[in-house]
Amino acid sequence: MLPVLVVHGGAGYVPTKRSDDSISGVCSATRAGYKILKEGGSSMDAVVETVTQLENNPTFNAGCGSVLNVKGDVEMDALVMDGKTLDSGAVSAVRNIANPIQLARLVMDKTSHACLTAEGASKFAQTMGVPEVPLESLITEYSRMRWEENLAPDANPVESQMGKMGTVGAVAVDIAGNIACATSTGGLLNKMEGRVGDTPCIGSGGYADNNIGAVSTTGHGEAIMKVTLARLVLFHMEQGNSVEEASDLALDHMKSRVASLGGVVTVDPQGHWAARFSSLQMAWAAAQKDTLHYGLYTGEHFTQSIDGPQQ
Amino acid sequence: MLPVLVVHGGAGYVPTKRSDDSISGVCSATRAGYKILKEGGSSMDAVVETVTQLENNPTFNAGCGSVLNVKGDVEMDALVMDGKTLDSGAVSAVRNIANPIQLARLVMDKTSHACLTAEGASKFAQTMGVPEVPLESLITEYSRMRWEENLAPDANPVESQMGKMGTVGAVAVDIAGNIACATSTGGLLNKMEGRVGDTPCIGSGGYADNNIGAVSTTGHGEAIMKVTLARLVLFHMEQGNSVEEASDLALDHMKSRVASLGGVVTVDPQGHWAARFSSLQMAWAAAQKDTLHYGLYTGEHFTQSIDGPQQ
Repeated sequence: MLPVLVVHGGAGYVPTKRSDDSISGVCSATRAGYKILKEGGSSMDAVVETVTQLENNPTFNAGCGSVLNVKGDVEMDALVMDGKTLDSGAVSAVRNIANPIQLARLVMDKTSHACLTAEGASKFAQTMGVPEVPLESLITEYSRMRWEENLAPDANPVESQMGKMGTVGAVAVDIAGNIACATSTGGLLNKMEGRVGDTPCIGSGGYADNNIGAVSTTGHGEAIMKVTLARLVLFHMEQGNSVEEASDLALDHMKSRVASLGGVVTVDPQGHWAARFSSLQMAWAAAQKDTLHYGLYTGEHFTQSIDGPQQ
Repeated sequence: MLPVLVVHGGAGYVPTKRSDDSISGVCSATRAGYKILKEGGSSMDAVVETVTQLENNPTFNAGCGSVLNVKGDVEMDALVMDGKTLDSGAVSAVRNIANPIQLARLVMDKTSHACLTAEGASKFAQTMGVPEVPLESLITEYSRMRWEENLAPDANPVESQMGKMGTVGAVAVDIAGNIACATSTGGLLNKMEGRVGDTPCIGSGGYADNNIGAVSTTGHGEAIMKVTLARLVLFHMEQGNSVEEASDLALDHMKSRVASLGGVVTVDPQGHWAARFSSLQMAWAAAQKDTLHYGLYTGEHFTQSIDGPQQ
């Protein structure tokens, strides 16, 4: 059953013209992460590489392609967690960085802290030699168009949020049985300056424990935080529920308690995995036993050989 | 059994010469919060008033009296959570604010977000008319002395952390049965710029749910985050454990899984309460049925009439 990697490209509604890009993006990133696992690499290396590829893909709301805040700026959040030690690293509200997930990993590996924010995170990036990138390199034409639309007097902010949840994340178990998660996001369109969502908040945006499993979440950050969604899934697994059952119980709780939809990718130490969502769609993919699994709508589950023609 | 308020002034080691101030500080703040509850006020009003008084008391590592970061600056974190709606508000790495807990509440009440960080939080404070205070007004002679000691070539950073955990927090259930928590801190002495600890991280620094109870935590932030300590206590309560049992199970897990000590104050919807810690000391107080309870060392539990001579 090992190794295994499960990846999401965000829960919500993906416009039809962008859905093919979302699916091919998560499939491609999943192949890259799975290759690392197959060659004996660690789950941490695999989830960071997978999320790096998704950050670099302008289709998703993370890294290049992040949504813009109310000032037209990009502020990004990211989290990694190591299930063996429970060490984690996060950054919040970071700007001018191509790959927040790699900076989050540096926080974990190179500091005694678990989270650095804003200017402090930028200064740390400089000391680590992480290049500063121009804001424009993170902004796509699509992001700017949606931001401008949202400034119009007749804009519907709720509708504007649709189609751009797009947070990305991955969970993996490597051959040694070590578990890791990674999540990265540009947050909410038109968010206030300095808004921090669920992604860098351990237990909400993600959680990993070798004894239980790992989860990466996506959806409306403020709602996910209300129920500490990632940790909630794992608590249900600790009570004996399967990865699917636990994921659905936690998503059902978020729906009934705070009336919000979202999605999760989940693994357990044995390599059982799930990609579950209560939203209309979630672009997801998984790799196990040289098979690539993927889907977008509820109930969709396509499979092909991992080395087959590129989806 | 209702109303009830439980308060802590930080887990760790309090130097003897400061322990009286710690005890009298938490007792005084507890009296102020309990008065609000007795007069029919909300649990949220009570915990925010209690924590505001502790922030204003230079004895504690929150607001005035916060420890200094590596640059000799003060950056503070705070969180409130409303157990009825699961709404929360937090600020991280905020500077030049007298009462971060009040700013956290404004984030909850006046924005659609759950956390604002650094400069974004400062700008929000300005729009809310929260006065900017000079850095010097937050720094005590004691904080500066400890920071300078820690810069000495022969300083022992571990020893320097001792005696200044001092995070403050409160949990309460009001007459209407609504539950709230509040936690505020200056963080870790000599922390990096932009370091965010457990306090503003929902589920780690605190959590409140009318259906389960509430917890505010204190200890080494990075360790608390590893086990999402507040939510962990509440999960144990959901499994049928008492407030004491659940608090001890969660603290035992933090000790065995990540070798770290800390403390919690916990309430359930019926008004059962606990103040538990694995550290040498935790200054705590509770008010219920017009009785003030308080202690500092394990096993200590003094009581007196809430209207009795001031402890």
